[in-house]
Amino acid sequence: MVSNTQIIFAQIPTTYPEEGKHMLVKKSEIDLDAEIPQGSVLLKTLCLSVDPYMRGRMRDASIKSYSPAFALNQPMNGHVMALVLKSNNDKFKVGDYVYGMSSFGEYVVVPEAYTAGLEVRNEAKDSGLPLTNYIGVLGMPGMTAYVGLIKFGKPKKGESLYVSAASGAVGQLVGQIGKMLGLYVVGSAGSDEKVEHLKQIGFDGAFNYKTKDTKEALAELFPKGIDIYFENVGGKMLEDVIANANRYARIVCCGMISQYNTTEPYGVRNLIQVVGKSLEIRGFIVSDSPEMREPFRKDMTKWLLEDGFKYRECIAEGIEKTPQALIDVLRGENFGKQVVKVADL
Amino acid sequence: MVSNTQIIFAQIPTTYPEEGKHMLVKKSEIDLDAEIPQGSVLLKTLCLSVDPYMRGRMRDASIKSYSPAFALNQPMNGHVMALVLKSNNDKFKVGDYVYGMSSFGEYVVVPEAYTAGLEVRNEAKDSGLPLTNYIGVLGMPGMTAYVGLIKFGKPKKGESLYVSAASGAVGQLVGQIGKMLGLYVVGSAGSDEKVEHLKQIGFDGAFNYKTKDTKEALAELFPKGIDIYFENVGGKMLEDVIANANRYARIVCCGMISQYNTTEPYGVRNLIQVVGKSLEIRGFIVSDSPEMREPFRKDMTKWLLEDGFKYRECIAEGIEKTPQALIDVLRGENFGKQVVKVADL
Repeated sequence: MVSNTQIIFAQIPTTYPEEGKHMLVKKSEIDLDAEIPQGSVLLKTLCLSVDPYMRGRMRDASIKSYSPAFALNQPMNGHVMALVLKSNNDKFKVGDYVYGMSSFGEYVVVPEAYTAGLEVRNEAKDSGLPLTNYIGVLGMPGMTAYVGLIKFGKPKKGESLYVSAASGAVGQLVGQIGKMLGLYVVGSAGSDEKVEHLKQIGFDGAFNYKTKDTKEALAELFPKGIDIYFENVGGKMLEDVIANANRYARIVCCGMISQYNTTEPYGVRNLIQVVGKSLEIRGFIVSDSPEMREPFRKDMTKWLLEDGFKYRECIAEGIEKTPQALIDVLRGENFGKQVVKVADL
Repeated sequence: MVSNTQIIFAQIPTTYPEEGKHMLVKKSEIDLDAEIPQGSVLLKTLCLSVDPYMRGRMRDASIKSYSPAFALNQPMNGHVMALVLKSNNDKFKVGDYVYGMSSFGEYVVVPEAYTAGLEVRNEAKDSGLPLTNYIGVLGMPGMTAYVGLIKFGKPKKGESLYVSAASGAVGQLVGQIGKMLGLYVVGSAGSDEKVEHLKQIGFDGAFNYKTKDTKEALAELFPKGIDIYFENVGGKMLEDVIANANRYARIVCCGMISQYNTTEPYGVRNLIQVVGKSLEIRGFIVSDSPEMREPFRKDMTKWLLEDGFKYRECIAEGIEKTPQALIDVLRGENFGKQVVKVADL
């Protein structure tokens, strides 16, 4: 028997989730020598991804949404990179690296029904890229940036792009892809250090939304208006962007983190401009665009290895840091893509 | 010399416009025998269209929007059907019926530069359809319904459609086109008489938004949720629709009349559902879709003549009724497409 720490969803939060109340660190044991069921695999989790959308899963299971609610008193789950320790499934071999949805535990037996959400990614063994990249820039967050900007932003060379939460898991890539496509790119973030970083990775402009009025900053940094907004924040930020948007602007809604942890959502008052400016506001979920997976992986790998793309990560060490890592993401207290390193090989 | 009454834009309103203050009826004279400039035409206005979008033109000319501001102390203008009395332009002959943008006066000399906005529509002489139809169901409002629902609503047979301001110039057609395309259609309007009318012209359901709570009515009339919303109202109506929208719903924003005459716009608080449900909110202007003009005219003429489409009009008699007719439209006190009959042939 070995120790097996898991992260349990224990209670539905009304505002920000808390460790010890809504999320628990639970220690148990697992027998790694035990037989596993037909079709299942036994994984050793190497690293896991905490992302803003998980807040939406901390809800009453009776409320429908695009991703399922977390089950109460069960382990949370999300994207991981893991090593196959045992396989009773032809798709996976012992020693394979797999990427996909798995429970947040050090060791996980994935039943056959859930193995469809796993994929072998043995290229991670010798790509020269950090393993954590596979749950970030080369995983769901990276593909979210790619699909959102290219498919829904419909960028044309010379247009202007604004990215909020721009130093985050998705935003930092949206800005760099925007530059690659010939856009004028401005981002906002919540500290001067983050703002400085955005300029260093190629953003044409950046501002700290905590110390500068957004509406003024946008007017100043977008003298010709905003053509594409990659929306991660919502609320007043969205209202200020609409006020500065050009005719036919596309507002691609990836997330609205300012509205996740509040019981008093902000009322956006200038939607009448949607008519006057023929705006398009479009929410999307990356998993609805599987046709873009291969082009994304090909392009992003090239951009990382050959074109100098930077991907900043914020690495928490140890699975027991998972609750705090997620809270940091929701409060904007991380810097870069937040991941949790669970184990070495 | 003959009498020539014009409608003058006299002052920018902050809420609802008023006759005698923001819009004036001005009597003057015109010499119909006078020479007209090279390239111009002299028109006798037969009927004119008042439409909600005109409220947006009653603004400070320094504010940009898709349609130009009305010039202060000049005649208002809009869509008309008119008879050519004199022509100094090869494109128009005496006796032609023309459709297009013209000043609101009984007689108008249209300078060459503005004749591009006019089009000969002599088929109106013998189509058997009322002349007023050419500024309504067969004019800009009709094409707005057609383009909005078909191009931006992207309807699929069996989906559900909700139309607000459903007995208006555009809404009544959106509903009937929706039925023609195999949709389940519900509309709302501001009186029981209008609601009854909607049911008579084929809507599957209808409710009076003044006497019934919108959110409840939508939940009741859309047990399977809303797939397409044809938005004419905005504000709380939009919020209630978002709450009842299905995943991938399209919200086609044609207008937001509830927000045109207020200094305290409503704040929509549930835009976070744009992300959760992958909603698409899209404003549009009919003039951006010229490729749909011919299909629209062909289809709509057939629907009127062969398929029993109904088009209810509200006809004010005499050009001096124009200010009140527009005010009625903005207050929802008309019933059907509001037109002003200016002259007989």
